[in-house]
Amino acid sequence: LNAESGVVATRYLWDLTALYLPKTSKAICRQIASHIEFSLARSKWNMDYYSLFMATALSLRDRMIEYWNDTQEHFTDKRVKRTYYLSIEYLMGRSLRNTVSNLDLFTNYTHALQKFGTRLEELYGQEQDAGLGNGGLGRLAACFLDSLATLNYPAWGYGIRYQYGMFKQVIVHGQQTEAPEYWLKAGNPWEICRRDITPDVRFGGYVVQTRGPDGKIRYRWEGGHIVKALAYDTPVPGYRTMNTLNLRLWSALPATEFDLDNFNREDAHPDYWESVNQRQKDENISKVLYPKSNTYKGLELRFKQQYFFCCATLQDIIRRFRRTQCDLHLLHEHAAIQLNDTHPTIAIAELMRILVDVEHFKWDEAWTVVTKTFGYTNHTILPEALETWPVPLVQSLLPRHLQIIFDINFYFCEMLKAKGTFTQEQISHMSIVEEGSPKRIRMANLAIVGSHHVNGVAAIHTEILKASTFADFYSLWPEKFVNITNGVTPRRWLRQCNSALARVITKRLHSEDWVANLDLLAELRRDPTEELLQEVHDAKQKNKERLCKMITQVYDGTLNLDPNALFDVQIKRIHEYKRQLLNILGVVHRYLTIKKMTAAEKKNVVKKVVLFAGKAAPGYEMAKLIIKLINCVAEVVNADKSLGGLLKVVFVPNYNVSFAETIIPASDISQHISTAGTEASGTSNMKFAMNGGLIVGTLDGANVEILQEVGKENIFIFGATTEEIAEYRANAAPRPIDERLFDVLTAIQEGKFGYPDQFTPLVDPLTRGTDYYALSYDFASYIDCLDEVDRVWKDQHEWRMRCVRSISGTGMFSSDRTIREYAEKIWNIKPCKYVPTQSNA
Amino acid sequence: LNAESGVVATRYLWDLTALYLPKTSKAICRQIASHIEFSLARSKWNMDYYSLFMATALSLRDRMIEYWNDTQEHFTDKRVKRTYYLSIEYLMGRSLRNTVSNLDLFTNYTHALQKFGTRLEELYGQEQDAGLGNGGLGRLAACFLDSLATLNYPAWGYGIRYQYGMFKQVIVHGQQTEAPEYWLKAGNPWEICRRDITPDVRFGGYVVQTRGPDGKIRYRWEGGHIVKALAYDTPVPGYRTMNTLNLRLWSALPATEFDLDNFNREDAHPDYWESVNQRQKDENISKVLYPKSNTYKGLELRFKQQYFFCCATLQDIIRRFRRTQCDLHLLHEHAAIQLNDTHPTIAIAELMRILVDVEHFKWDEAWTVVTKTFGYTNHTILPEALETWPVPLVQSLLPRHLQIIFDINFYFCEMLKAKGTFTQEQISHMSIVEEGSPKRIRMANLAIVGSHHVNGVAAIHTEILKASTFADFYSLWPEKFVNITNGVTPRRWLRQCNSALARVITKRLHSEDWVANLDLLAELRRDPTEELLQEVHDAKQKNKERLCKMITQVYDGTLNLDPNALFDVQIKRIHEYKRQLLNILGVVHRYLTIKKMTAAEKKNVVKKVVLFAGKAAPGYEMAKLIIKLINCVAEVVNADKSLGGLLKVVFVPNYNVSFAETIIPASDISQHISTAGTEASGTSNMKFAMNGGLIVGTLDGANVEILQEVGKENIFIFGATTEEIAEYRANAAPRPIDERLFDVLTAIQEGKFGYPDQFTPLVDPLTRGTDYYALSYDFASYIDCLDEVDRVWKDQHEWRMRCVRSISGTGMFSSDRTIREYAEKIWNIKPCKYVPTQSNA
Repeated sequence: LNAESGVVATRYLWDLTALYLPKTSKAICRQIASHIEFSLARSKWNMDYYSLFMATALSLRDRMIEYWNDTQEHFTDKRVKRTYYLSIEYLMGRSLRNTVSNLDLFTNYTHALQKFGTRLEELYGQEQDAGLGNGGLGRLAACFLDSLATLNYPAWGYGIRYQYGMFKQVIVHGQQTEAPEYWLKAGNPWEICRRDITPDVRFGGYVVQTRGPDGKIRYRWEGGHIVKALAYDTPVPGYRTMNTLNLRLWSALPATEFDLDNFNREDAHPDYWESVNQRQKDENISKVLYPKSNTYKGLELRFKQQYFFCCATLQDIIRRFRRTQCDLHLLHEHAAIQLNDTHPTIAIAELMRILVDVEHFKWDEAWTVVTKTFGYTNHTILPEALETWPVPLVQSLLPRHLQIIFDINFYFCEMLKAKGTFTQEQISHMSIVEEGSPKRIRMANLAIVGSHHVNGVAAIHTEILKASTFADFYSLWPEKFVNITNGVTPRRWLRQCNSALARVITKRLHSEDWVANLDLLAELRRDPTEELLQEVHDAKQKNKERLCKMITQVYDGTLNLDPNALFDVQIKRIHEYKRQLLNILGVVHRYLTIKKMTAAEKKNVVKKVVLFAGKAAPGYEMAKLIIKLINCVAEVVNADKSLGGLLKVVFVPNYNVSFAETIIPASDISQHISTAGTEASGTSNMKFAMNGGLIVGTLDGANVEILQEVGKENIFIFGATTEEIAEYRANAAPRPIDERLFDVLTAIQEGKFGYPDQFTPLVDPLTRGTDYYALSYDFASYIDCLDEVDRVWKDQHEWRMRCVRSISGTGMFSSDRTIREYAEKIWNIKPCKYVPTQSNA
Repeated sequence: LNAESGVVATRYLWDLTALYLPKTSKAICRQIASHIEFSLARSKWNMDYYSLFMATALSLRDRMIEYWNDTQEHFTDKRVKRTYYLSIEYLMGRSLRNTVSNLDLFTNYTHALQKFGTRLEELYGQEQDAGLGNGGLGRLAACFLDSLATLNYPAWGYGIRYQYGMFKQVIVHGQQTEAPEYWLKAGNPWEICRRDITPDVRFGGYVVQTRGPDGKIRYRWEGGHIVKALAYDTPVPGYRTMNTLNLRLWSALPATEFDLDNFNREDAHPDYWESVNQRQKDENISKVLYPKSNTYKGLELRFKQQYFFCCATLQDIIRRFRRTQCDLHLLHEHAAIQLNDTHPTIAIAELMRILVDVEHFKWDEAWTVVTKTFGYTNHTILPEALETWPVPLVQSLLPRHLQIIFDINFYFCEMLKAKGTFTQEQISHMSIVEEGSPKRIRMANLAIVGSHHVNGVAAIHTEILKASTFADFYSLWPEKFVNITNGVTPRRWLRQCNSALARVITKRLHSEDWVANLDLLAELRRDPTEELLQEVHDAKQKNKERLCKMITQVYDGTLNLDPNALFDVQIKRIHEYKRQLLNILGVVHRYLTIKKMTAAEKKNVVKKVVLFAGKAAPGYEMAKLIIKLINCVAEVVNADKSLGGLLKVVFVPNYNVSFAETIIPASDISQHISTAGTEASGTSNMKFAMNGGLIVGTLDGANVEILQEVGKENIFIFGATTEEIAEYRANAAPRPIDERLFDVLTAIQEGKFGYPDQFTPLVDPLTRGTDYYALSYDFASYIDCLDEVDRVWKDQHEWRMRCVRSISGTGMFSSDRTIREYAEKIWNIKPCKYVPTQSNA
């Protein structure tokens, strides 16, 4: 709009939109009706639950848009430093319950929907999970957004709007098969498509050398191929605050401008059909989330995804920074960029390119800004899981970035040599470039070199990083390394998913303050009454009944569980190091044991449901074989009438956030039994403890801190320590195995659970000394530990006491605490709460 | 919703949505502000013209949704027979002006937008043309929808929602290059995505034979691969009626259900990445409109598009029919399906498949229903342009349909033989299956056999169909063949695009009734006053000034035209048969002539602007060379100062509906000079005449009828007749060519317009007797005709008289007349006007 008419327009618009939408149920009804009629174009003839869900969600989006606008304006006014969280995954799950709950509109919406003849809760199930992540890393990012908003921190999340999120897991004949999940098929009412925000992203091309006015050489990246990134925004509501943050996800859009420059070059596509095909390929960049796997197919596309979202994001950050009218040399005073794992690491080279090539910073000035801007969160210990990219791939897609990375590495290695304290071998380990054929770029090393802080996600994890994975870097820059233990949002993972328990807690603590200050849970431990124990138990029982109903539904009525049984749960990605195999071997042991019992002995057995859920990467054959074994065992055990129902095994297919929200509140025991030294943190362990389930775990990841917080008598720990595992691996050799394990393996190999031999790849390593994850080593203590679980279960008073103590010790595992630590130790940002003025409140 | 809560919900919703949106400018303002704030999530900080356009459009969509719902409900209540118009192209152009104008809200919206500091007209240009068509055929479909709505006929349009519409034409060094046009990039505010309407479309698979309970053989199509069709609805407003129709366009969506059946088969995609790729391919089915060309690349995809939209459409029609609770044997009493050209012909086989295989009709019963349901509009005379598909392609994609087509053909040929009046050669010409290697399916023959009526689109066209193209069919079924001359909607093509002239007409006729009853224009001819002549001329002058401005804009200020010159326009697809080449050769002749003149002689020359626009199919090299020649001539002529500006040549790139709306009202002369017997109708000739331009044309297509209507003294006709062309072609041989043409060709070959020889493929045939389109044959009379134009132009009184007489004779070329003929002669449908009851009006 031109200046004058622009003024008229905005003034008039301002008048019309000045007031917040009223919160009365009548106003809500009108809003819903209007969305049904106009946004969805439904009429009374074709209205259904889904349209009610959509209209309800849209009406909430309206409210969040109001808050969102005011929050962003407030941040801009206050010129605060902001955090930008870059993550290639966000596992958001569903949003309706979270939004109603955080906006504190549950009662108002309940009343409004009654007028439409339905209950708010009926609509929750209409929503499709937003599954744009593989597991913990993506869910962590989602929890962080909730805490950032709730704590009024100025922050945005950035990522990719995959059209196909995590694959849909379908179990066919016990085997995992993977179907693409088009999660947007029914529409996503939460997102706002920003058709005016479409930064260009270049791939390929070449580097042009010129001389600047100062006679120095300059580089300019040109040619190649432009793709556009289209912004989709999802408002992130805080709990009991008007502060509303933004998750901006980028979707690839074909460039639409005719590229005259390119047309005149050899690499042009003068053929119309080729151009059309190229556009279709461009769109595919953001099509699909890569399942986490050791062996990616289609590497090039994954690398393109990384650069695609980093490039668009940096343009967006700098565009916003420019509004402050500050010198770009001060970027780090206005923006903290956090790299969630190494996937966004290319942003470091991209920011260097912008500062040096476009803004004509001197190299050192640029490097100062960059290293004061970025922070890097490491999520993996295993050296083999650290991301590297082949140099020829980087060369072909990002020729200028490769030069920059080589330059960064050159200065870095020169500095190391100058120190004189590092051996050549150490320097070659620390180098960003890995020698070999082809050479590869080590993204973790680039991230460490280019960041001001590197953090691990649990105490033991950070210690291992310092002592082993990045020991040399630690000796160089000890102050760079910090630990920030993960956390989970108590809004979603307690208040919303377990309203029964939440009510008990609120009653006991005489307030709901604990939801935003989870340390208050410690109060529960002070002299727990019998009444409290009973109420906590009743809540658990209710949740177990809800879970049983869900499972009956999932299994079309063919599987009915007893909610009085002990529910023993392991839900997480299926991976050898997470040792679902150990769990199912334990189940087989329990099965064989019960089978041998007399009727009298059986009376003494604890009735148990063992529940598994999780996905295996499509190409990960061992993990898929574990799923097959679980399902085969389940089939035999569940059909065996001789057990009298004492043992049931369930594999819940297509695990996602919503399933977790039903399963976690219902667990009595959950298993976090990774080989010591392999799991960075784990976060579901925190959720289980928070929901009053007890943990069976190894001394790995966050289990160590949970032990400290809940007290060692309230957690079931077994197995080798990190040190013992290291020693075990150093002396790998066939050794005598536990007799109970031998019986289990024999039963499997004899074909008690389907064709003999099919599970040989799982069973063989355990007997041949190639048992890398030390299942045979830990088996005996594991079984003993489960026996101890049974023993305590029989003493229900003791059990319930432990549950309450467990809950009360989870205060520090709120992601609010985590985010505060990031804000203070790494980002240097302050809360900035928006409070409306009288006139529009 | 379950029955009881459903009742509650709908009753409550009904109360809240009962009243129509108020039409006051204040209410409109509130609506616009609400869309800016919530639908677009813009704030006063980032509002621009585009968001004002979007919000304005959305506010109009809201109003159309209200009317749409009531119209559809009314049709259902009245149980009327409906027409379904199936067209693979719809060239809708822009919708804002049309919507405001048809809803009669121009004043209200003008006032509302003033409050936002802008003019309604400012927003028109913000809209992207919906260019889902190549040319006349698609634009005809769009005009028909407008007339259907205006005349209150119960009808729906069905087609494909291409993501890439007609390619964007960019002229580089005089040459056409094609860029994919992602017309949806800025969002389409008019459409409603119907995520609940996603019928399955199957491709591939096999035919299963079973026996029905009656012991007869039944066939069932199974296996293969399912794609979903997602419905997008665009409301079509009628002029001064609340009746609002629907254009439903299908978009391909990957199937999301896990295909267990397929998983167990060999042709399954057990690999996750293959599945993802397959989904991406599925989405591509509706991605791109095929440019009309004699040689398609990617044939398979085009055929898939045809079946895709026919299959989805028939499911939709039958679903709607079922609500009447009538027997499907009566389908033809409730539905008339019109095939716009042969592209949707596969619908005939699909309906047979549904009736016979799914509904278990007897073959003859099914055939009766089918042939009473379908009508077929032919759009092409040239036998080589009639669509055929190779049998192996049909076999692999639609195995059951191929069987059905063979069966239809078998019964048809048996019937022909039984008649005894057809020779074997005639029968083989009429056969649906063309012999050859491979055999091919003749879609036109299938359409004729399966329809109750076949119509041509202009008198001469229908006569040629009867006498030549389909002579044998005509002798078999004379009553099947009817002529329905095309028409254009006077709303868009006169009232909206030429408001200056519209005002003059309304003033003269003392009412706007002519807009819905174009025959009233005949009144203009009765004793036209000098005042009228002057007003018509002034309107034209205003339009020419507007066009000059637009061209200056298109050419970035480098091309300024004199609005007092004679504007001679040829805008349409570039094709040899349309003879833009003849036109540009005439321009060269004029150029050479003026060059030779003395200054005194030049004073006598009519100042002329020759304007071309149009696209050539990307693979059509001859057509692209014609564009190149036009641009080369333009470059030389426009730069030649010696002409004193007496001649300008303009090629307007990227011709589309919106350009046409500016160009047509500004033309003095327009050229419709196809070789006689090649153009089916042409419809732009009607638009030009309606807008007071005179036609230079051959006796081809609708020119013949325009001549009859406007009077032969008001149209410039030249060239060979159809009969003469036939004779000329029969005796093709080199013959002496007109001296003037010889000079022109020599100038071109000598390199006066760029490198010699580059235009040899254009020039050579004219001198060697291989001049299929008879340019050399018609050249002399063409030049003489243009001389006559100049002569009349100099007598401005005579010229203006002819313009008024031309306008007054265009009454019959309203698409309202056309649609009435279809309704009465072919579809047997009646108007069904919705009038609101008192309570909600």
